Amino acid sequence: MQSKVRLLPILDWGSSYKRDDLTGDLLAALIVTIMLIPQSLAYALLAGLPPQMGLYASILPLVAYTLFGTSRTLSVGPVAVVSLMTATAVGSIAEAGSVHYIEAAISLALISGLFLLLLGLLRFGFLANFLSHPVVAGFITASGLLIAVSQLKHLAGIQAHGDNLPELAHSLWQGVSNANFITLSIGMLGLLFLIFVRSKLAGVLRYFGISESLTGMLCKAGPIVIVILSTLVAWYFQLDEKGVAVIGDIPAGLPSLQFSGFENIFSEELFSAAILISIIGYVESVSVGKTLGAKRRQRIDPDQELVALGASNVASAVSGGFPVTGGFSRSVVNFDAGAVTPAAGFFTAIGIAVATLLFTPWLAYLPKATLGATIIVAVIALVDFSIIKKTWSYSKTDFIAVMSTIIITLVYGVELGVLSGVVASIALHLYKTSRPHIAEVGLIEGTEHFRNIQRHPAVTSPHIVSLRVDESLYFANASFLEDEIYKIISERCELEHVVLMCSAINEIDISALEVLEAINERLSEAGIHLHLSEVKGPVMDALQRSDFLRHLNGQVFLTQYQAVKAIVSEEQEYEI
Amino acid sequence: MQSKVRLLPILDWGSSYKRDDLTGDLLAALIVTIMLIPQSLAYALLAGLPPQMGLYASILPLVAYTLFGTSRTLSVGPVAVVSLMTATAVGSIAEAGSVHYIEAAISLALISGLFLLLLGLLRFGFLANFLSHPVVAGFITASGLLIAVSQLKHLAGIQAHGDNLPELAHSLWQGVSNANFITLSIGMLGLLFLIFVRSKLAGVLRYFGISESLTGMLCKAGPIVIVILSTLVAWYFQLDEKGVAVIGDIPAGLPSLQFSGFENIFSEELFSAAILISIIGYVESVSVGKTLGAKRRQRIDPDQELVALGASNVASAVSGGFPVTGGFSRSVVNFDAGAVTPAAGFFTAIGIAVATLLFTPWLAYLPKATLGATIIVAVIALVDFSIIKKTWSYSKTDFIAVMSTIIITLVYGVELGVLSGVVASIALHLYKTSRPHIAEVGLIEGTEHFRNIQRHPAVTSPHIVSLRVDESLYFANASFLEDEIYKIISERCELEHVVLMCSAINEIDISALEVLEAINERLSEAGIHLHLSEVKGPVMDALQRSDFLRHLNGQVFLTQYQAVKAIVSEEQEYEI
Repeated sequence: MQSKVRLLPILDWGSSYKRDDLTGDLLAALIVTIMLIPQSLAYALLAGLPPQMGLYASILPLVAYTLFGTSRTLSVGPVAVVSLMTATAVGSIAEAGSVHYIEAAISLALISGLFLLLLGLLRFGFLANFLSHPVVAGFITASGLLIAVSQLKHLAGIQAHGDNLPELAHSLWQGVSNANFITLSIGMLGLLFLIFVRSKLAGVLRYFGISESLTGMLCKAGPIVIVILSTLVAWYFQLDEKGVAVIGDIPAGLPSLQFSGFENIFSEELFSAAILISIIGYVESVSVGKTLGAKRRQRIDPDQELVALGASNVASAVSGGFPVTGGFSRSVVNFDAGAVTPAAGFFTAIGIAVATLLFTPWLAYLPKATLGATIIVAVIALVDFSIIKKTWSYSKTDFIAVMSTIIITLVYGVELGVLSGVVASIALHLYKTSRPHIAEVGLIEGTEHFRNIQRHPAVTSPHIVSLRVDESLYFANASFLEDEIYKIISERCELEHVVLMCSAINEIDISALEVLEAINERLSEAGIHLHLSEVKGPVMDALQRSDFLRHLNGQVFLTQYQAVKAIVSEEQEYEI
Repeated sequence: MQSKVRLLPILDWGSSYKRDDLTGDLLAALIVTIMLIPQSLAYALLAGLPPQMGLYASILPLVAYTLFGTSRTLSVGPVAVVSLMTATAVGSIAEAGSVHYIEAAISLALISGLFLLLLGLLRFGFLANFLSHPVVAGFITASGLLIAVSQLKHLAGIQAHGDNLPELAHSLWQGVSNANFITLSIGMLGLLFLIFVRSKLAGVLRYFGISESLTGMLCKAGPIVIVILSTLVAWYFQLDEKGVAVIGDIPAGLPSLQFSGFENIFSEELFSAAILISIIGYVESVSVGKTLGAKRRQRIDPDQELVALGASNVASAVSGGFPVTGGFSRSVVNFDAGAVTPAAGFFTAIGIAVATLLFTPWLAYLPKATLGATIIVAVIALVDFSIIKKTWSYSKTDFIAVMSTIIITLVYGVELGVLSGVVASIALHLYKTSRPHIAEVGLIEGTEHFRNIQRHPAVTSPHIVSLRVDESLYFANASFLEDEIYKIISERCELEHVVLMCSAINEIDISALEVLEAINERLSEAGIHLHLSEVKGPVMDALQRSDFLRHLNGQVFLTQYQAVKAIVSEEQEYEI
């Protein structure tokens, strides 16, 4: 039973579903549906795909998440960053607008979904932890900027392409003379309207005494209003004949399920792109889920979330959609609107399905500039440079990770950006631990405490040097320790005892063990004893499985104080 | 002056050079020269190059190391593993035996030399530390096996090729019916002779009362004796006309210096291969240098060694050689024969130069089978499976690193083998630190010590939980801590205080800081206080640069004992 609930969390919340829950979920579903329709169309455009694919990606995936998800309020569907990554990945193997391009995007969702399912069944959720906070923050900010710039072409009605800032800027600059004035007007008016709705409308409505809940709902309706308005204008004036790019005819009705045509599934480029998209999407989704969960004391299960997102992506693929994940803005809206259970997602799916059935014929006149404006306003909220300042003052290595992620994402595109961020944060972490802080410690008079002699006045002896290594000993820092010890013994001719205080050593791997053996041998030859103190249980267990303790020409002491006391009383030369 | 000595260590030892030093160095040079001539020819054959290139690689590089090296007894030149890696790298871009192949090998030495020089000038010697001991040991063992198998073709006089064990085995199996009986006889006799010299000759000579030093010298002359014998036999019976592969005519005289013809230098494949060869060669050389240095209390400077090996490789390239490094067997021979300073290397270079001038015409009849036997006997000494047993009993993660390196090197070749070893050891290290040991600690009665309550009988309170995290907090393990804490608070309804004992936390990066902020917020909402104790100086310095301490809804205590005492005295409920 437990394992059934684990794999199907719906059995858990579903069994105690109440009438009150239904009210909250239905209202939230209505609001999210209104918000999701223009967003879905816009992100399909961002991914370079026909707009109806955005709607398709907002139906079955939501049903899948309702069945498998552990967050009560997460809302899945197409999101900005993943759509941009889809465009980059698919654009590198297929021509924009071709059937092959569409098939590749669908395959990408399938590979990504299967990969997430696999990770989830293997319980590999911890992998996402290797994306450090500075890398994710830098990546999201840089992607937001890239996306905003990429949409300028729709606003101006020109052709432009590129996966990174220099290419986009060059391409926009070349096309700027062909800008269509009517398109530009629609785009700019849309942009101004959406910015007004987002930043000022709530204040205005409150001023007129409109209730708080209605205000919230009206503010979220901004995108759908501008979609309807601009579509009506374009239809009335037949703007498509005046050079304004519109969506054009799209097939009416629901997507048909398809389980074939995935011959792109084994393409190596798609595979590596799918892995990146999966991990980025997963990290984004889990961090949204955790943030919202914390507000209501609800936990999410990271491994089960892999299963849920995997199922959502497979569902997207078989219903003609593209890669999806849990989005920040829609989940917050869902949460604020009072969603109580994942059933809200199910109702949203019904809402989108109804809209797809009824309204798709009406979308033919929707100007692309309107969708471009919608995207820009949505992604500008992602751009947040405060992480740069924060890391600068807190830690220079984190700062380097942020800056390299931002710069490489902007200059070389999303895939290289996120990869270099991961490599940079791992490399910086290894570099730091490869040159650990090694403090010479001495006794604080009147206590049993040993402290860094450079920070505290402490008692030492010319015959004894006590070193505290503030890092686990492993291959990357073992020879650093060796060099430090040899430097010290070459400087102190009276030295007879070296005590390694191991309170901060959580592990000694075999490379470090070999180095300790070498240090022990070298010190023995020089007539110096090597002692250990405060060795932790697990480390001592490992040492006891090796020959090291038999070769050690000194002792292992429980505490540093006992070590120095024993050595001194043996020597009878040094007074504590 | 100091920096001159740093870059030219010869100014250091050269200024105090004595007559006694000269005697030791000259004798060592003689013995190493005798050993080096067949070895140089053999390793050139292993690299797929004309034999004279092995001699060329044993002249100028030794002079360069004499000028720049910091080890007194290291002997540079062609070595087995680097020669195999050269064959693999060059074989992937040029046809064996072609002029292009030779040029590529020379370019490889140049790129490798320049790369090492660059690393040395940047003082990047620490990079070698990322090759863990299990990876190096596994790699050397697997390479030794690969090399031995690859030489079977010369022993049997058949054609075979391949960069890994399955290819080699397949290729040998197909060619075995074409084996040349005379070649096989020469090869097997050579092999038996060399094995006898290596394992039994010393005992026999001692039995006949031959002096120890002469015995040592005679044992090292085994390869040169078999080279001379087999060459004479092949010449006398004109064995080349009977299908025995011989070296053939090679140009007499010293190599001419060349500073052009490096058009391959920008090939991407060569570049990545050169980086791998440089790092492997450097690690091998430095570990030999360190081992020998430790015996005479001489230190080597890892950064200056990069410069010295870089200069040696550049010297090899401009004199028509291929990549070189400090070799284990020749350095040990040099050391045992009494070399005192790097001048021994210079004298060895003169010895090889004289041999090149005088004897190259005589080498035309040298059977390749003899060189194959020389290589096999030399590399079998590298094969050492004891590391498998050792890591198995000490640490399973080190065991996985060894096994993956050995298996991938054997099955996929040297380049993938060493790369996967490095990736595996870094990944395993990160995996271990991503799930740190978190112990709940309690007070040992009658002391001020706090210990793991699962290992020791300790006093705890239902209102307080004290956790000791045995790892630095960074991006890879931050959310693991979060999950553990949330699990604990969801299980204990009476909890009012969480104390994080930070004695083993050497760093808190910004990802972990964000998680601590989130934990603090979550605990605050639940009415639970979060305290820290035993925070180290550098960690506290960093925390003070952030907002965390202002948001913290508990206190920071100097020691864990003070923390619990203060909390309890505030509550007046719990007796110590």
